[in-house]
Amino acid sequence: MEFSRLTEAAVPSYLRSLPAMGEHFSSFDALAVVEVGDGNLNYVYLVTNRRQPAETVVLKQAVPYLRVVGESWPLTRHRMRIEIAALQHFRTLCPRHVPEVFHADPERSLVIMQRLREHRILRGALLEGQLFDQAAEHLATFMARSLFFSSDFHLSPQDKRQALARFINVELCKITEDLIFTHPYDDSQTNSYNPALPRAAIDRIQRNPRLRAAVGELKFAFMTRAEALLHGDLHVGSVMVSARETYVIDPEFAFYGPMGFDVGILLANFFLGWYGQGARGGATAPAAQRWLLDSAVRCWEGFAQQFMTLWQQHEAQDGFIGRDLDGGSRQAFREAFMRRLFEDSLGFAGCEMVRRVLGLAKVADIAAIEDLQVRASAETAALRMAERLLLERGTADSIQQVLTWLRA
Amino acid sequence: MEFSRLTEAAVPSYLRSLPAMGEHFSSFDALAVVEVGDGNLNYVYLVTNRRQPAETVVLKQAVPYLRVVGESWPLTRHRMRIEIAALQHFRTLCPRHVPEVFHADPERSLVIMQRLREHRILRGALLEGQLFDQAAEHLATFMARSLFFSSDFHLSPQDKRQALARFINVELCKITEDLIFTHPYDDSQTNSYNPALPRAAIDRIQRNPRLRAAVGELKFAFMTRAEALLHGDLHVGSVMVSARETYVIDPEFAFYGPMGFDVGILLANFFLGWYGQGARGGATAPAAQRWLLDSAVRCWEGFAQQFMTLWQQHEAQDGFIGRDLDGGSRQAFREAFMRRLFEDSLGFAGCEMVRRVLGLAKVADIAAIEDLQVRASAETAALRMAERLLLERGTADSIQQVLTWLRA
Repeated sequence: MEFSRLTEAAVPSYLRSLPAMGEHFSSFDALAVVEVGDGNLNYVYLVTNRRQPAETVVLKQAVPYLRVVGESWPLTRHRMRIEIAALQHFRTLCPRHVPEVFHADPERSLVIMQRLREHRILRGALLEGQLFDQAAEHLATFMARSLFFSSDFHLSPQDKRQALARFINVELCKITEDLIFTHPYDDSQTNSYNPALPRAAIDRIQRNPRLRAAVGELKFAFMTRAEALLHGDLHVGSVMVSARETYVIDPEFAFYGPMGFDVGILLANFFLGWYGQGARGGATAPAAQRWLLDSAVRCWEGFAQQFMTLWQQHEAQDGFIGRDLDGGSRQAFREAFMRRLFEDSLGFAGCEMVRRVLGLAKVADIAAIEDLQVRASAETAALRMAERLLLERGTADSIQQVLTWLRA
Repeated sequence: MEFSRLTEAAVPSYLRSLPAMGEHFSSFDALAVVEVGDGNLNYVYLVTNRRQPAETVVLKQAVPYLRVVGESWPLTRHRMRIEIAALQHFRTLCPRHVPEVFHADPERSLVIMQRLREHRILRGALLEGQLFDQAAEHLATFMARSLFFSSDFHLSPQDKRQALARFINVELCKITEDLIFTHPYDDSQTNSYNPALPRAAIDRIQRNPRLRAAVGELKFAFMTRAEALLHGDLHVGSVMVSARETYVIDPEFAFYGPMGFDVGILLANFFLGWYGQGARGGATAPAAQRWLLDSAVRCWEGFAQQFMTLWQQHEAQDGFIGRDLDGGSRQAFREAFMRRLFEDSLGFAGCEMVRRVLGLAKVADIAAIEDLQVRASAETAALRMAERLLLERGTADSIQQVLTWLRA
C-alpha cells in the first residue's frame, strides 16, 4: 500500500470513519488535534472533543523516514507493526501499566490508543523535583511480568519460536547496536561531547582494552541471546506517571533479547539522574537523589522477587531443570540464574551510562546542565561508575553494594 | 504431498527418473540396493552399479515417525529439510569435510549424496584400534569455518536473521533439551543405568544442587543463544574417516545455538573414548588413549587458532566492537570471547559425558564393555570428570589443564 501521512486536518474525518471510535467520541464535529511528537521518528496527535474534554485519544503514525532528518534517511514503517504488537502483548500481560490500544492500522502504520491525560513523562517530572511513591514498584512489576511470561521458563519451545519470529526487529536493533554498543566507544562522528569534558575521561573509556572487551561481550549478548521479549528502550523517558499510576510507552524497539538489557537501561537512568541532581544541587536535589537510589533498589529487588514468585507459580510440575530430587536443586538454579541476570543488568547499565554521556542521544538530567564545567563533573563521575559496572559487574553481591560504588 | 516411503525395489526406477543421476550412473539396469540405516530414525540405501562399482551413491529418506518405534511415535519429516539445507550450507563452507549432495527432494524427504566408500565411522574405527593422523585437524577446520561464517562476526544482521529463520528446528532441539539436559538428571524413565553402577555415583550427579544449577544454565544457553549455525550432534559417530580424509555427516540437528555446544560434544567424545580404552585395556589401548588426548588438544587449539585467523581475515574494517583506537582492544575482545567459548565448551562436554553414562543414548566406547564392574569403573570416573567440567569450567586456563583433571 502506498503510504500517505495523515495530516492534522485529516484526522477528524479519519476517526469518524472508524466504527471503534464511536465508543470514545460522542461527536466528531469539534475535535481539536494537536501534534506533540518529539520530532525524531513519528507524528503524535492528541485528539480531544472540545465539548467533552474527557473524550480524548492519542493517534501515533510512523513515517517511512527519520522525521528529524527527512525523506533522505529512510526507515521502514515495520517499526509500527512491532510497536502495535508489543503494546497489545504487554497490555495483555500487564494491563495496569500499559496503555490500551483502541484501533491499530498496520497498513497505514498508525495506532490509536488511550490518552494518559494526567500523566507526565517520568524524566521531566523528576527534573522538576516531583517524586512518585509507587513508580519503582510498578516498573518492577512490568519487567517481571513481561520478561517472565515471554521466556522459556513459561512458554513451550513452539510458542517461544512463534513469539520470537513475530518480533524480529532488525532495523531498530541495528540502531541500538550502533548507538549504544559501538559508536560511543570508537570516537564516532555521531558522538557529541561536552566541550568541557576532559579528553582523558573520554580516552579512559575508548582506549581501555578490558572495558571495550566487556562492551563487546555485552553487544554480542544483545545480538544473540533470545531470552525474553524486551521493551528495548526502557529509560525514564519511556515511562508516564501520575501520583498513583505508571505506564510504559513506546515499545517500538521490542525484540527477543537478554533480560538484563531492560533492567540495566532502567537502573542506569536512575544512576544518571542521581549524578545530574547532585551536580545541579538546589533545595530539591537531596530528596530527589534519595528517591533515585531508593528506586534503583526497589526496581531491582522488586523485580527479582516478583520474577521468582511468578517462576514458582507458573512453572510446570517437572520444571525447567526436570524433577527436583533433593528439594534444593530448583532453587539453586533459580538463584544462579538471578545472579547472572543481575550481572548482565549491571553491564548493560554501564553501556547506557556511557552512551548517554558520549553518544548521540543525551539525557536532560545531565546534558541540560548549563554550566559546562558542572556538567563535566557529573559526566566524569558517571563514566567512572559505568567503567566499574562494566569491569566489576561480576563481583557485586547486591544492589546496595552497587550503590556504594555510586557514592564512592 | 502425501508421504510414501521409497522401498528398496523402487529405488532403481526412481534414480533413473532423475536427470542428475545420469552423471553418476552409466546404466540403471544392474543397481544393487542395500539398506544400512542404523534403524533409529531414517532409511539409508547404498546404491551401486554392479557392473561399475565405482558408480555409487547414498540415498537417505526420513519417515514421518520414529523408525525404531514405528508410526505410533510421530516425528515430522521437517528434519530432512534441515539436513538437506545444512549439508548444502556446510559443503559450501567446507567442501573438503562435507559430502556432496547430488539431488535433494524435500517433498519426499530424501537426499541423494556422495558415497564415502573408503571411509568408516570414526567411533567404530577407534574402537578397533585404528588411529587417524589428520582427523582432529580436519574437525577443527570444520568447526572453525562453520561456526565463524554463520556468526555475527561475519554476517550482517539481516543475513543472520534469514539464516536463523531457515534453521528453526524446534522438534529436534526438544529431543536434545530432554535427552541431554533434563532426563539424565531427574532419574527419568528414559534413562538406563549399568546395574553395576553404584547408586551413590548416580545420586552424586542427580542430587547435587550446584551441579544441577550449572546444567540448568547450560540448558538455558542451548535454548536461547543464537550464536552460530551448529551441527547439533557432533560426536564421533557423526564423523567418517579414511587415512587422509574426514567427513562430517548427519546434520539433522542443525540450528542456531551456542558455539560451545558443538565443540563440547566433540571433546566429550574423546574423553569418553579415553575412559573406555583405559577400562578395556589391551595392547592397543595406550596408543589409542594417547591419540584421544592428543586429538582433544588439537581439536580445541586448532579450532581456536583457525577461528581467530578467520576473524582477523574476514572482519570488516571497523570490526565488531568498532574502530580499535588503542590497537589492543580488538584483540582483548577476541581473547575474552574465546575464554568464554572455552568455558561454555567444557560445560557442554560435561553434559554430554553425563548423558552418555546415565541417559538413553550410550556410546559403545563404554556401554559395550562386557564386564559390568569394569564398565562401572569407567562410568564412575567419567561422571567425576563431568562433574568437574560442570562445576569448575570457569577455572581452566587451557585444554592441557583440563587433561590433568582427566588423568586425576
